[in-house]
Amino acid sequence: MERKERKIMVGVDESEESMFALSWCITNLIADTPNVKLVLLYVKPPPPVHSFNVAWYSSHAILAMEQHGKDLANSVMERAEAICKDFKTTNMKKERVVGCGDAKDVICSAVQKLEADTLVLGTHGYGFFKRALIGSVSDYCAKHAECTVVVVKQPCP
Amino acid sequence: MERKERKIMVGVDESEESMFALSWCITNLIADTPNVKLVLLYVKPPPPVHSFNVAWYSSHAILAMEQHGKDLANSVMERAEAICKDFKTTNMKKERVVGCGDAKDVICSAVQKLEADTLVLGTHGYGFFKRALIGSVSDYCAKHAECTVVVVKQPCP
Repeated sequence: MERKERKIMVGVDESEESMFALSWCITNLIADTPNVKLVLLYVKPPPPVHSFNVAWYSSHAILAMEQHGKDLANSVMERAEAICKDFKTTNMKKERVVGCGDAKDVICSAVQKLEADTLVLGTHGYGFFKRALIGSVSDYCAKHAECTVVVVKQPCP
Repeated sequence: MERKERKIMVGVDESEESMFALSWCITNLIADTPNVKLVLLYVKPPPPVHSFNVAWYSSHAILAMEQHGKDLANSVMERAEAICKDFKTTNMKKERVVGCGDAKDVICSAVQKLEADTLVLGTHGYGFFKRALIGSVSDYCAKHAECTVVVVKQPCP
């Protein structure tokens, strides 16, 4: 019996850790497994709040910021696609999804909306300070995302 | 070039969720991958504290409790081994490890001591109350274990 298509979502951003997580995912979860769709999810930060100081932002500046956000999303996606190509896996379907807002909420919503089976996220090392300051997105999603969650950690060099 | 042996540790206990996590692990992470060692880790709860009410426990009762703990560990391990056999994966080396103490600490220490690459843990569904009351072992380990952590969640029926 053929296995149902699995949908594996990987959160990608500008960090090395997210690219490492993508490589880990392809090596360990996908490889040459048939019927897998890889969803690359990039979350743009929400636009700056400027309810009462709107005068500070000219329309030109806002457009420039929007363009910068789009360029960043494209650049991250291109990097992710290059990693995928390196692995030369066969039959891997891919989808790009770009969201906007608070990363942890957008990721958990995307899992639900796109019915992902597995969510793969990178995290930032093991150090005490790093653990205290960052990594809260993967902590939150490991607990709240409605699917199996892989928190990929890079081994210490 | 042959890949270095991967060591995948799965936390097993009496719960259906941990057995589901083991099945998930074999299906999605191991399958017929060469050079994988599966470490089955069971953590016995610490013995009851009886510093000043030692009289309440006869030596017979203590021995009976110890025996019960051993029987439980064996029964969980046997169930886990039966699941492994069902998958008929080839070349999979296995190791049984039984620890004792606070589950989250024992698991994180075992990851470090046995140099596991990946830790796989089950968790208890998505419901709000379940999330609030239990699942703290997998939350803690996802954050603190010094390796990649997979939190396996059973899809809602």
